[in-house]
Amino acid sequence: MSYFTITNGTITSPQGFKAGAIYAGIKKCQSDVLDVGIVFSENLCTAAGMFTANAIKAAPVLVSQEHIRDGMAQAIVVNSGCANACTGETGLLAARDIASATAKKFNIMPQHVLTASTGIIGVQLPLQVIKKGIEKIVVSRDNGHAMARAIMTTDTFPKEIALEAELNEEKKNIVIGGIAKGAGMIHPNLATMLCFLTTDANVSQDFLATALKKAVDKSFNMVTVDGDTSPNDSIILLANGCAQNRELNIDSAYADTFCKILEEVCMYLAKQLTKDGEGATKLIEVTVERAFNIEQARSGARTVAGSSLVKSAIHGSDPNWGRILAAIGRSGAAIDESKVDLYLHNVCLMKSGVIQPFDTDPLRILLDLPEVPIRINLNLGDSSATAWGCDLSEDYVKINSEYTT
Amino acid sequence: MSYFTITNGTITSPQGFKAGAIYAGIKKCQSDVLDVGIVFSENLCTAAGMFTANAIKAAPVLVSQEHIRDGMAQAIVVNSGCANACTGETGLLAARDIASATAKKFNIMPQHVLTASTGIIGVQLPLQVIKKGIEKIVVSRDNGHAMARAIMTTDTFPKEIALEAELNEEKKNIVIGGIAKGAGMIHPNLATMLCFLTTDANVSQDFLATALKKAVDKSFNMVTVDGDTSPNDSIILLANGCAQNRELNIDSAYADTFCKILEEVCMYLAKQLTKDGEGATKLIEVTVERAFNIEQARSGARTVAGSSLVKSAIHGSDPNWGRILAAIGRSGAAIDESKVDLYLHNVCLMKSGVIQPFDTDPLRILLDLPEVPIRINLNLGDSSATAWGCDLSEDYVKINSEYTT
Repeated sequence: MSYFTITNGTITSPQGFKAGAIYAGIKKCQSDVLDVGIVFSENLCTAAGMFTANAIKAAPVLVSQEHIRDGMAQAIVVNSGCANACTGETGLLAARDIASATAKKFNIMPQHVLTASTGIIGVQLPLQVIKKGIEKIVVSRDNGHAMARAIMTTDTFPKEIALEAELNEEKKNIVIGGIAKGAGMIHPNLATMLCFLTTDANVSQDFLATALKKAVDKSFNMVTVDGDTSPNDSIILLANGCAQNRELNIDSAYADTFCKILEEVCMYLAKQLTKDGEGATKLIEVTVERAFNIEQARSGARTVAGSSLVKSAIHGSDPNWGRILAAIGRSGAAIDESKVDLYLHNVCLMKSGVIQPFDTDPLRILLDLPEVPIRINLNLGDSSATAWGCDLSEDYVKINSEYTT
Repeated sequence: MSYFTITNGTITSPQGFKAGAIYAGIKKCQSDVLDVGIVFSENLCTAAGMFTANAIKAAPVLVSQEHIRDGMAQAIVVNSGCANACTGETGLLAARDIASATAKKFNIMPQHVLTASTGIIGVQLPLQVIKKGIEKIVVSRDNGHAMARAIMTTDTFPKEIALEAELNEEKKNIVIGGIAKGAGMIHPNLATMLCFLTTDANVSQDFLATALKKAVDKSFNMVTVDGDTSPNDSIILLANGCAQNRELNIDSAYADTFCKILEEVCMYLAKQLTKDGEGATKLIEVTVERAFNIEQARSGARTVAGSSLVKSAIHGSDPNWGRILAAIGRSGAAIDESKVDLYLHNVCLMKSGVIQPFDTDPLRILLDLPEVPIRINLNLGDSSATAWGCDLSEDYVKINSEYTT
């Protein structure tokens, strides 16, 4: 079975999904700025969600966790510009109120509305402003792109995609669409970000949750921008069944296909948000091969991708590969130094632990490219993993030293 | 019992210790640059050491770990400019050769020489250059300051101190001196750095190791610059007994005194090297109070001190306190948001989880000061801990994007 990318695909590409967004007035007024958006399905969906591992959870996360418990949802309402995190009881009431206003608009149950916020922490939401915005929003199949823009904060471009696959035997097509925002506070478990995924496939609740977890482990949990984890991280997947395929579950012939497409969507969005990391100029792709086990492969790849020293060196196109080794050395992965092979852009810098001579100047030119692949072969076991990070630039500091003011 | 700071105190302030340093030619030649140094005791010392937790250990670390196994040492030889890490068998032979050359110079056993290196990773040492330097070094009581400078890399100032205490009943004075270097790759377990400590106290081997571990846990293991851990981290403590006190052990009347002074020396050096973190303009002191247990207090304090977002905000004097809460939220410390009190510079920003109004402008002026105290009271248990970090500036990126070239 094959699948393909839908041109200009987004969260409303799957059948039965609509979206809408508006400038309600949370962010500073600028042309083309949107700050409240809604994703709505014509019918009730099976729903799966993954939320921040931070002990401090934003109010909208608490509400979404409560509302998704029964595995059903029909709408997601999101605002940017204010995170509604660390806002206590007032913030929690505000998040519930927003869910109710959205439910009323569509004449559905508040428990079927999921909520998300992103932006500054520790400030109360302008509740009336948002509720007025919700009233005015018009949802349609065409407004997926506006929704992708409405969830942005310091992102410099929207992240959206949709993939389509044919379930050959059934002669039915299914689509998975998604949007994400990231930029700062991106780190495994979860990458700090919002990601909303939709599919018109008919999927059982259990399998939906399993497929989401699997895809996130290989994508969003393998990207890092700055090591911080926000209280607002949320990944939500809605499946409305409009494709009218036989219900997908773990035993379905198409189970692997569905997982694979979902993984592709998540990988694409995860890489896009790493590319757009605050101040980032390059995407770093770190592959650890032949680690002792998968946990060590993942932890090794993530630690290298997240090392401030590696990130700074890559920013300066400096082949300071010793820092790569030092980073994997502190990752918890078992290492026999005399077995390690190390490649930067396919240039072998270390073979079986022995430094290999290389020409600095051509390598520096390669390191100027926008994607920097790093490959470390530990030659110890059979597990491999890939993580994505971005370089650390002066701009990261500039962006983050003047955020609230 | 009281103790006091010795004016211009350094590693040779304790009786019986000499030091010497030279420009051998490892670093680029500049006026006043030193790159090889030796600390030497007139007599054999009891010795304790703590070394990097990185799985990749530099050659001099492997040699020191081997030589210190019997708990005895008489000299430490150190070079800066080249880390002799990731250098395989050749690097190991070089480290052994340097220990032997030093042993020969003083007519002592090579096993009683400890080795350390700091600088660029993945490059072989210029062995002959260093051995010639070792031959030429003249050790004396006066050269402690030169030794402190010889171990510097991107440090902007040497870190040195000596404290003296009187053992009242014995009418004997003991001195503990120390030097350290840090700057980049500073992170708990261990802070990436070299620290050499000397004392003329007569101390049992067991107690020396215990006292060092205790002091390091509260000092070097509580500082963070950039989250990276170098393969070269070493802390070495030599006790030569020249003060002729009765041997100190865990049951001695002066055991606590000795631990306290050692802790003060380590705290001073740890804070100095955090202040001098690469690109740092401010020292951040994070105290977590009333955590559930000591591990959570320490992890909470370290996570806040190490958060890139907190560090960037402090750099810009931005009271973006939500990031502080988000950081402790991901630290693993148990948190009940409704119990948290948060103070920036003694200004209360959150009380029992409720945001407190504050004037931004006066707080920004306080945040411009060179030391920024952050206090988080979790109101859950009885454990407190303090960690130190520094702000994240554009200069950190500049320094680290052009290091090897």
